[in-house]
Order: sequence, then structure tokens, then C-alpha cells
Amino acid sequence: MFNFKIKKRSGKARTGLLTTPHGEIKTPGFVPVATRGALKGMSFENAKSIGADIFMVNTFHFYCKREYETVAKMGGLHKFLNIDCPLMTDSGGFQVFSLGAGFLEKTGKISSAVKDVRTKKGESMVKIGENGVFFKSPFDGDKVEITPESSIKAQEKLGADIVFAFDECTSPLASYEYQKESLKKTHRWAKRSLDALSDDKQVMMGVVQGGRFDDLRKGSARFMAALPFFGFGIGGSFGESFGDSKNNMYSILEVLEEELPDEKPRHLLGIGEPEDLIEASLRGVDLFDCVIPTRFARHGTALTSDGRINIESSCYREDKSPLDKNCSCNTCLNYKRSYLHHLAKRGEIYGIMLLTNHNLYFILNLMEKIRDAIDKDDSSEIEKIKKGLIK
Amino acid sequence: MFNFKIKKRSGKARTGLLTTPHGEIKTPGFVPVATRGALKGMSFENAKSIGADIFMVNTFHFYCKREYETVAKMGGLHKFLNIDCPLMTDSGGFQVFSLGAGFLEKTGKISSAVKDVRTKKGESMVKIGENGVFFKSPFDGDKVEITPESSIKAQEKLGADIVFAFDECTSPLASYEYQKESLKKTHRWAKRSLDALSDDKQVMMGVVQGGRFDDLRKGSARFMAALPFFGFGIGGSFGESFGDSKNNMYSILEVLEEELPDEKPRHLLGIGEPEDLIEASLRGVDLFDCVIPTRFARHGTALTSDGRINIESSCYREDKSPLDKNCSCNTCLNYKRSYLHHLAKRGEIYGIMLLTNHNLYFILNLMEKIRDAIDKDDSSEIEKIKKGLIK
Repeated sequence: MFNFKIKKRSGKARTGLLTTPHGEIKTPGFVPVATRGALKGMSFENAKSIGADIFMVNTFHFYCKREYETVAKMGGLHKFLNIDCPLMTDSGGFQVFSLGAGFLEKTGKISSAVKDVRTKKGESMVKIGENGVFFKSPFDGDKVEITPESSIKAQEKLGADIVFAFDECTSPLASYEYQKESLKKTHRWAKRSLDALSDDKQVMMGVVQGGRFDDLRKGSARFMAALPFFGFGIGGSFGESFGDSKNNMYSILEVLEEELPDEKPRHLLGIGEPEDLIEASLRGVDLFDCVIPTRFARHGTALTSDGRINIESSCYREDKSPLDKNCSCNTCLNYKRSYLHHLAKRGEIYGIMLLTNHNLYFILNLMEKIRDAIDKDDSSEIEKIKKGLIK
Repeated sequence: MFNFKIKKRSGKARTGLLTTPHGEIKTPGFVPVATRGALKGMSFENAKSIGADIFMVNTFHFYCKREYETVAKMGGLHKFLNIDCPLMTDSGGFQVFSLGAGFLEKTGKISSAVKDVRTKKGESMVKIGENGVFFKSPFDGDKVEITPESSIKAQEKLGADIVFAFDECTSPLASYEYQKESLKKTHRWAKRSLDALSDDKQVMMGVVQGGRFDDLRKGSARFMAALPFFGFGIGGSFGESFGDSKNNMYSILEVLEEELPDEKPRHLLGIGEPEDLIEASLRGVDLFDCVIPTRFARHGTALTSDGRINIESSCYREDKSPLDKNCSCNTCLNYKRSYLHHLAKRGEIYGIMLLTNHNLYFILNLMEKIRDAIDKDDSSEIEKIKKGLIK
């Protein structure tokens, strides 16, 4: 039922086809994130029509109030969302990090709108132990525990095609010693996650951690590679500062490319900036997921072939050009920047819908160009993509 | 270029075809409201695909910051919104009422989220004089004046096919004496509005006022009927209390049906509850506009053939039935109440999109059933619609 076949190679990059019981996924591919079981501002149908072939749902958001039980009663995610394409769920590990170290250090991505999850003394409410993690739910303050077993149970109830092992997602600021100890636990949790999976209609991805340290990443890749995972997530954070995090990520991807089994798919978790999609694809990454296309849209930011623009800027008030003159999405074919500016400034839902459509199209189209260049083994094409983000 | 032709009659009800330079409108028909130039949660294209043939844009929202100037520079509303079907704009009179008496008496519909528009003494900031109205903008506190001439100028710049005369929209609580004096001013403003219109690609609707008083309404209808309007809006409020307002509205519609020229279209402004659409159509009303389908959707309320339901209610958490088992909209064909409940509870944009789609389909479908019954002159069919809201 599940299969990953590499089609073409170009350097370390490769195109492939990942087959699941609900359909095929072209790689390198981008997985749009439907956090709570819906894309924010777009139907699954529309997303599929512009090239999405798989979606990710966040287990965490169905976990805290045991909503995965409701989804199970309704027949699982595919029936609940009425969608017949491949789905994946993450483990919840990343959101726990966002609530813990990520919240205190402002390095996580959980919305600041959630309830304060610190104790009165300002300490993190996330407690990480050998068995799992305890934390205060950001939704209602309830005390919640996630263990490898409970994460996998929730992911089984949700019923996505591809699930992820439960891991500790460490902070980019964590010390070598912390990362090393954490990694050992993540490895024990990886085994427990595998042991907990009983549904043969699902496959599991192990998650390589190790932060910004080459040797830890290498050790993690070797450990995970020895376990019977279907593929591998590459999780956690990279360089300590924003400036060096990209270069650190690229060099770590080169380390992992050598260590991870060539024939299994690799998913770079939570990464989705255009340049990262290109650089990581060139380093042998097969899958990506990220909230950038949808989240940016809600803040008026459009990804374009000339870089990011914020459509709320007053310079676009009377601009008769499309969002991106090189784009063929419905938004660019039908609307001018002036109208999108007007809608974004007023917080109109339709403005979010139009920008979401554009941003997702932009990313999916970029992935298609990357696949084409790899298929043609055309390094000049790849250079063009790298340099100009496909003009 | 503009034409209104009555096709069939059944009692006082009639079906017709209103022709404009941008296309035809079937009557009795419902005009979805695109307040700021966008439906809240739906594309114009989708709305047209489920039967919408005209949209209303609110002049007020383009007036306060002179945004109608930007729209004019972009080529007018049709080009700005990239839409090739008939459009109408209202005059802004209703929103001024909402800010004034409507705000103080809580009878208006302007969102409570706007800035407080009262003076420090708690008085209304809306001053109504012979020349026009002065008020404090709810968007930024700026002092704004609207006169019949400036409303029409803004509507010309917006460039919709059908525009409305500027009127004073009185409170349901206003006394007979107040209404009588106000009505005289509205009549003077109607003439000034007509004088101000210079664009022959637009036609104007006069607005009949007179509150809950039969004799004032009759006098207003006679006055307006004598002026060269293309058709007539029926504006303002009816009975003093919620309980008697519907009956008062129905009886006033019967008065107006006798006074207004038979061959010209009549638009009942701001009314859109299903039972009112039926009762008013039976009393010879041709057009309606209302924010109910879209606004209800944002609050989780669905219009169904069994009446209104709020999908956020916990009773729908595991409900596998569609929103409305008698409905053929995309939402009802594809999604279960449990999923819509989940999305609405979490404030997901996609939940708003799905409910908006359903509610608008429900209303447009109701209008089609009303037109069919009138075309067939089938009173039993009309009774069925009245009783069961088309099961």
C-alpha cells in the first residue's frame, strides 16, 4: 500500500513518487498545513486543483481536549474532512516546544493569543520527563500529558496515512549537553512510538533531532536509520541566531543526506521559505510542510518572484498591476494590487482568501519547477531557480 | 440600456426581468451585500454560480475616507472588483442612522466594534440639518458630512448600475411629528439627489420613508411616484417593537403596493429573513438586500428548512447529517454538521466560508422557488413555501 520510488536524480537532489492508500505524492513536494483540519482561507478542493497532493493536520490541536475521539467516531480524518487524498499528522512535539522553551525564549511559533502558559514565577509550565511531557493547555489551562504512546494513539484515531514519532523538539538556544541528553530520550521515544503503532494502514516517520550540532545530527540519523521507519522527519531548530540558522541547516542537511537511507523519504519539518525549499531539495530533501503560505496571507504578505511584499503598504493603493506579474494563479489573473490592498487594509476575509490562494500557488508552482529541473538534470535551470526564484 | 419588464403575475406578486448594461436580474430577487466590495467569505464567482445576479456595495464604507476616489481612479467598481454583472450602491443614509439614533437606541446595525460615536455628554454625534448630515466617522473619528449631492457624487464615482437617493432613515422609536418633518426633508433630498445625477449609465431609485405610519408612507409613495425615478426603495423601519414590526411592515407593503407605479421595480431595503422574503414578494416587492446570509454565517448560524440553527451548539458535535437535509448546496452535499461544528467552535475561516455558501444558497434558492410559484400562479405552491419554507 505504501511505497516510495525515486524517479530521477540530479546531484544529491531527487524526484520521486510516494504512494499511499489515498493517492500519490510527487516529491520534492510541499505539504500545506491544515492545522485544525482546514486550510485557513481555502478549500481542500481548490488547493488540490492548484497542485497540492497531501495535507498535514496538527495532532496537538485535536489532542488537548481529546477531539481525536470525536474524529474517530466520525470515521477518521478522511471522512471527517471529506477528503480522499493522502494526509499526515505530526506528533505534537513541536507545539509542546512552542509552549515551553519556545514561549519563554520567543523562539516558538504558538500564537501569542493563547493563554499564558507560565507559572506565577514565570517558569515554563512544560515539564519534560522520561515518560513524556506535562503541560498546561494553551486553550483552556487544563493539565495535559503527551507520551509517545498517547501521541501515536491519537494519531491512530485521527487515521492519517503518514504519522510521526513523538520527539522532543529542542530550542535553538539549548546547550550541547542539553541537546545530547534530550536526543537520547527522543531516541527512546522513537522506539516506543514504533512499538505503539498497531494500524497497518499507517506508516511512521522517525524524527531526527540534534539541534545545530553535526555530530548529534549524524548520530541521530544513524540511530533512526536502523529502525523500521517508513521515512524520516528532520525536526528541531538549527543555528543559534537567525543569521546562521540557514547556513547551519544547509550544512546539516548535507550531513544527513549521507547518513539517511537513500531509498527512504525525508521530510524537513516546518520549513517553507522559498529559498529553503530550493536549497533543501538540492540536498536531497523530499517533503516539506509549513504554515508560511497561509499565515503570511493573513498578515497581508505575498510571496512573489520579486520577493515578499506586504500588500497593506500604501504604495499599492492605486497599483494596477497584479500581485506577481509572473504568476498564473487565479488571484493574479483576476485582481489588481489596489483591490488586494483595499481588502487587506480592511481585514476582509476575501482578501485573506485571495492571498492564501496566491501564496500556496506560488509555493506549489515553485516545487513543480524544482521537480522539472531535477527531472531534466539541468543545473542551469536549478541555478536560474536559485537566483531568480523563477522569473 | 435599463429596463424593467413584468413577466407573470399571481395576485399582487409578480416576476420580472430587470435589464442593466451589465446584465439581467430576475425578480423577485435577492441582492447579496458586498459591504466593502467583497462578500465576507465568498467569491463573486461562486455567488454567481449559485444564482446571484447582482450585488450591493455600501457607499458609506467608501465615503468616510474618500476611498470612492481611489475606486474611480481604478476605473469604477466593476473594474476594481473585476466583476461583469449588475451592481448597486446605497446612499449611506442607513449607516448614518445606525451611528445616530440607531447607536443610542441600539436599534441600528453598525457593529458595536466601531469607535464610540457619542459626545462626552452621551449625545449623538450625528447632526441632521437641511443641507445634509454631519457625523464623526466610526472608522477614525474624522468629521464627515454627507449631503444628497455628495452621496450621489460618490455613487457616480463608484459607478454601480443602480444608485439610491439620499434619505434620512428614521428610528422605529421616532414620533409621528418627527417622522413627518423628516419625511419632508427626505423628499427635498430626493429631488436634490435626482438633480445631482449626471451619469446616464446609472439609474436612481427613490427611497420611500414614513416609518410605521400608513398615511406618511402613502404620502411618501405618492411624492416619489411623481418623480422620474427608475424604481423605488422602501426604507427605514417599521413597527415600534420587534413583535409588531413584521405585521406593520406587511400592512405598509400593502399600502405601498397600491400607491407605487406598477411598472417600476420596488426594492425593500435591508430585509432578508426567509419569511419576510416570501411575504413581501407576495405583496409585490421585486428586490431585497440583506447581510443576514453572510453575517449569520460568521456567528455560526445557518438558515435551514427547519428554521435557524446555531452550529456551535454542542448537540451537533457528533452529528453526521448535513446542515440541511433538503439543501443541495456544496456545503450540504460535502460536509457533516460535526465538521462544521468543529470549524465554527474554533473560529476557522473555512467554517465561515462553508456557512456563508450555504446561507446564500438557501436564500437564492428560496427566491427561485418563489419566482417559480408566481410564474405558475400556483397559490398552493406559495402556501407550501409560506408554511414549510420549502421542505
